[in-house]
Amino acid sequence: MNAQFIVIEGLEGAGKSSAVETVKSWLSTHQQNYITTREPGGTPLAEQLRDILKYYQDEVITTQSELLLMYAARSQLVENVIKPALRQGQWVLGDRHDLSSRAYQGGGRQIPMTTLDQLRELTLGDFRPDLTLYLDIDPKVGLARAKARGDLDRIEQQQQAFFERARSVYLDEFERDQTIIKIDASLPFLMVQDMITQALDTFFSHE
Amino acid sequence: MNAQFIVIEGLEGAGKSSAVETVKSWLSTHQQNYITTREPGGTPLAEQLRDILKYYQDEVITTQSELLLMYAARSQLVENVIKPALRQGQWVLGDRHDLSSRAYQGGGRQIPMTTLDQLRELTLGDFRPDLTLYLDIDPKVGLARAKARGDLDRIEQQQQAFFERARSVYLDEFERDQTIIKIDASLPFLMVQDMITQALDTFFSHE
Ligand SMILES: Nc1ncnc2c1ncn2[C@@H]1O[C@H](COP(=O)(O)OP(=O)(O)OP(=O)(O)O)[C@@H](O)[C@H]1O
Ligand SMILES: Nc1ncnc2c1ncn2[C@@H]1O[C@H](COP(=O)(O)OP(=O)(O)OP(=O)(O)O)[C@@H](O)[C@H]1O
Ligand SMILES: [Mg+2]
Ligand SMILES: [Mg+2]
Repeated sequence: MNAQFIVIEGLEGAGKSSAVETVKSWLSTHQQNYITTREPGGTPLAEQLRDILKYYQDEVITTQSELLLMYAARSQLVENVIKPALRQGQWVLGDRHDLSSRAYQGGGRQIPMTTLDQLRELTLGDFRPDLTLYLDIDPKVGLARAKARGDLDRIEQQQQAFFERARSVYLDEFERDQTIIKIDASLPFLMVQDMITQALDTFFSHE
Repeated sequence: MNAQFIVIEGLEGAGKSSAVETVKSWLSTHQQNYITTREPGGTPLAEQLRDILKYYQDEVITTQSELLLMYAARSQLVENVIKPALRQGQWVLGDRHDLSSRAYQGGGRQIPMTTLDQLRELTLGDFRPDLTLYLDIDPKVGLARAKARGDLDRIEQQQQAFFERARSVYLDEFERDQTIIKIDASLPFLMVQDMITQALDTFFSHE
């Protein structure tokens, strides 16, 4: 099997970073070389943009700038890191990808999905993850987990309704994309871990 | 008359910065309050993006990122500086604006003009300059002037053909936009200065 691009998605505190560890174990067990990435970020320039997106204080960032900076960071990561890794036979395991922009900027910020489609076409063409594991969580529960972990950043400080709208987009996209697997992230982590491993076994069984 | 948004456009070394001085004199003579801006740049975040766009060395900037960073910078400048100034009755004099992206990214980098239209719609809606003074110059002549001034930046290092394509877009847009005035920037600067002053007198004669 060719090297695959696996993405972990979900709201704040859904358990994405924890899930990344589970997938890493699975990849090691199956003796696959891999790299991990996170979005926004993952290249020197993209990490600089991540800092701006998460912590910029000196001036109001417009909704449009936020969107454009997200896609600029994604373009850098995909062209300079993800595609080269896949070409060299390394699997890529991403903590967030394009679906996060559709959920947060499209759902949360209410930018028309046609605009999201246009930016995806511009920056990604038809490049897509092979598999997305979407960790579904009630935003109240996720934010409580994230809060327990420390201070909230610029985006984590959005209102409840923002995250409800983001969750709707995640659920919509899950309904019409066969490469997205939904996992109930409100369950105890050991069960989430099991479901992730089973999903990987099933999805990549033709190996 | 309401405060107006005047933009100076043209290739490298066309004489834009020199023309800005001419317009500033005209505005002072007519006792108008004004601010000057430059693109990309003009806000703390936009200036940070300008630095990246002109001098970034650590990694290849994709054509798409370059485009998106330009529009992110423009969104910050228009929302946080240009529109507030105009609302307060200050004229705005811009060294470059959206037409530069259409010429450089659309013409130079050959990104489809429909994409440029979409990004303009997203970031500017129907906000447009009241008057654009386009300084038309053969790229060979302009680059020779720019070179005489010092080292060339990341964009100034493009090939001749890049700038020929950019010039074509400038000329196309001039043909179908009545708010663009073309000035022959190959003439001696004293004549260019006269033509600029006359253009301003004529365009704003209903004052
Ligand atoms: N299924 C679970 N049940 C309870 N707690 C969990 C579960 N999964 C993760 N956690 C805990 O919730 C917190 C957030 O988890 P994690 O950092 O993995 O989420 P995340 O989705 O990566 O968050 P962020 O979006 O902020 O990066 C951590 O303290 C983690 O231990
Ligand atoms: N009409 C002219 N004839 C000859 N030289 C000129 C003319 N206008 C400007 N110059 C000279 O050409 C050089 C470039 O001019 P200027 O800096 O105004 O151009 P610019 O369009 O702002 O360039 P850039 O795109 O690099 O900012 C300067 O040295 C300037 O004095
Ligand atoms: Mg995380
Ligand atoms: Mg100049």
